[in-house]
Amino acid sequence: MERSQVINFGPGPSALPESVLEEATKGLINYNGTGIGITEISHRSKDFAALTAKLEELVRTQLEVPSTHVVLFAQGGGSAQFSSVVLNMLARHRLLHPELSDEQRVMDYVVTGSWTKKAAEEARRLGGGRVNVVADSREHSADGKSFDNIPPHEAFKLSPDPALIYYCDNETVDGVQFAYAAEDSPTAFPFHLLKNQTLPPLVGDYSSSFMSRPIPHLADHAIIFAGAQKNIGPAGLTILIVRNDCLVDVDAAAKLGATPVPLTMAYKTLADSTSLYNTPPMFSMYVSALVLENMKNRGGLNTFEAMNRRKQEKVYAALKDGEGKGVFRLRVRDGSRSWMNVVFRGATEDIEKEFLASGESQGLKAMKGHRSIGGIRISLYNAITEEQVDRLVAFIREFLAQHTTP
Amino acid sequence: MERSQVINFGPGPSALPESVLEEATKGLINYNGTGIGITEISHRSKDFAALTAKLEELVRTQLEVPSTHVVLFAQGGGSAQFSSVVLNMLARHRLLHPELSDEQRVMDYVVTGSWTKKAAEEARRLGGGRVNVVADSREHSADGKSFDNIPPHEAFKLSPDPALIYYCDNETVDGVQFAYAAEDSPTAFPFHLLKNQTLPPLVGDYSSSFMSRPIPHLADHAIIFAGAQKNIGPAGLTILIVRNDCLVDVDAAAKLGATPVPLTMAYKTLADSTSLYNTPPMFSMYVSALVLENMKNRGGLNTFEAMNRRKQEKVYAALKDGEGKGVFRLRVRDGSRSWMNVVFRGATEDIEKEFLASGESQGLKAMKGHRSIGGIRISLYNAITEEQVDRLVAFIREFLAQHTTP
Repeated sequence: MERSQVINFGPGPSALPESVLEEATKGLINYNGTGIGITEISHRSKDFAALTAKLEELVRTQLEVPSTHVVLFAQGGGSAQFSSVVLNMLARHRLLHPELSDEQRVMDYVVTGSWTKKAAEEARRLGGGRVNVVADSREHSADGKSFDNIPPHEAFKLSPDPALIYYCDNETVDGVQFAYAAEDSPTAFPFHLLKNQTLPPLVGDYSSSFMSRPIPHLADHAIIFAGAQKNIGPAGLTILIVRNDCLVDVDAAAKLGATPVPLTMAYKTLADSTSLYNTPPMFSMYVSALVLENMKNRGGLNTFEAMNRRKQEKVYAALKDGEGKGVFRLRVRDGSRSWMNVVFRGATEDIEKEFLASGESQGLKAMKGHRSIGGIRISLYNAITEEQVDRLVAFIREFLAQHTTP
Repeated sequence: MERSQVINFGPGPSALPESVLEEATKGLINYNGTGIGITEISHRSKDFAALTAKLEELVRTQLEVPSTHVVLFAQGGGSAQFSSVVLNMLARHRLLHPELSDEQRVMDYVVTGSWTKKAAEEARRLGGGRVNVVADSREHSADGKSFDNIPPHEAFKLSPDPALIYYCDNETVDGVQFAYAAEDSPTAFPFHLLKNQTLPPLVGDYSSSFMSRPIPHLADHAIIFAGAQKNIGPAGLTILIVRNDCLVDVDAAAKLGATPVPLTMAYKTLADSTSLYNTPPMFSMYVSALVLENMKNRGGLNTFEAMNRRKQEKVYAALKDGEGKGVFRLRVRDGSRSWMNVVFRGATEDIEKEFLASGESQGLKAMKGHRSIGGIRISLYNAITEEQVDRLVAFIREFLAQHTTP
């Protein structure tokens, strides 16, 4: 199949702009006229230092990262961060409050889907503190077991002085996302609950929404992390935004009883070496820089925010139509629906199968729901164009026409 | 500069075969006729499962990995393994000997260069056991401080029942390598010292010699690890060969007091999920599979061993000539010299500078020694062809002719 015949709606790894990939094929053979490919040059060369600086600058300016925060590049994906955030933030808390017992040291988790559930499990497994579930979407769902909503603000039970407050902006599997920017929205993250804290230990997993729209209250975050393989570039790279007070001396904390932190997981190690403690995932960084530059040249983050807003509005509108006609059922409650991962079911399993097979035959690929919940999931990351969304919507509407009596 | 004008003697990231890179440019745009690029397909797709299986098979057959060992793919490079091997092997030892104190739990390190020194430091830092330096090259050097030799076998002081016995086959910075295969060589690894152990906890860092020649006594190893970015592929991928008894339940060990292991660092997590616990470094895996297939088609590991043997013989012969003429000085003692990283000095700093500048102007790139020891380092990884070595030797001989009176 030709590339032009396919639209890749995969949840990540996901589509990248073709022009960027074309450019990357050149860099793979000969980077910047060095006569050496990008995967073959030294990570300590001037050329690569310039690339790292450029990548940082592209993240920093588009997201308006203040000087209170560093931008770091790591390996291991979001799953490695599930451990890293716990180890680093427990070390920080230990240095601030050496007198507390593990039982008194609390980690707050907002559980809104499969990924925050996993992150909280890892915190429990690593120990060194107690996990407090701040709120759990399942308790607010109709059936008592589905991740289909952002819990109401009054349900959030934050601890007085936790080691960390963890949330995930967008749950890739379940299609649940905090509402964007609207301060008074009942499904936005309740930043107002943090207003008495000067350095809130707020940790945000932005893996599947990074660079799709600005990050609200970015400066209030202790740590923001994101795997590259959704909106940014090839898998293997994790981008971190860490507030300076969270670059702690983990060895000093270990002397006070904190769990020792593997050196490559300590944020201070990464920061002290400008993310070059050891060989970084160079190709992923290279392509990510190309993607972000391409984005900047096309109007930057605000343009993409507006585009992403329109994209999901069109798709949800078509699906709501389908809901009205009894063909589809949206999984997530209105107001908590993801811009990036549109998750829904067919009225019957046969309808789902037909939808997926029919899409596949027309080049609309990778729309199958996550194996844990089934159904259909259509991911609308930055590389999906509005024209491609129009093709998708036309396909949905045609499918609806075939499955409803006039 | 054109690629054809350049020979990249970099220590890693290092040269890759041009034909492989050309193939990779196709896969980047459209992998296997899917209409989707390799960095954009799902890591849980059939196509990628086939790629992972193929990569494993290429490692397994060429290195003759027995069924007692699994082949795993991880992120984080060698530096992350410095921590992982300690955490996993201490957990294993804890399960075998729960009664021992940290002081009684010993980790044996053979220190032959900068990388084993770093690895031993990380073991000390993580704690949970005591580091015993089995032997240290510096104690056997002429000046008492240089890594310029493999210590004599009689100097090795192994502990009775250590949690791990750690060595590095090839020290990339210092150019010190264990002699190959010759059982009676005084500078081969002293495998005979392990002969009374049924499952020796032997850990080998093969980062910079992996796939350059067979691994002696592979089956006696608990863990072998290697970053991809020398002989195999782009940075971001670490290949592991782990004996089944080392895939331990780290949580059970933690209940007995072992340090908790971050989930992505636990070998059992990786093995239980066929290295797909989370999104792996797909592009690095893809290119590595292409490199190993290319290698197989060109005669496989034994052919490369013979070629690599010839390559280093030619280079060292020219440098010994230069030593006789008072122009160069080889840093490492005969018998301990690396096949992969040829490390030497000029008689004066001016000679070094001139050698590097003259080489650079003729396209012989990345020959500068590591910043910690200076001098010159020429890396002869698999992708460096014999023709390129001949060009290098001609350059060295011409340089010598210019710097000696007839």
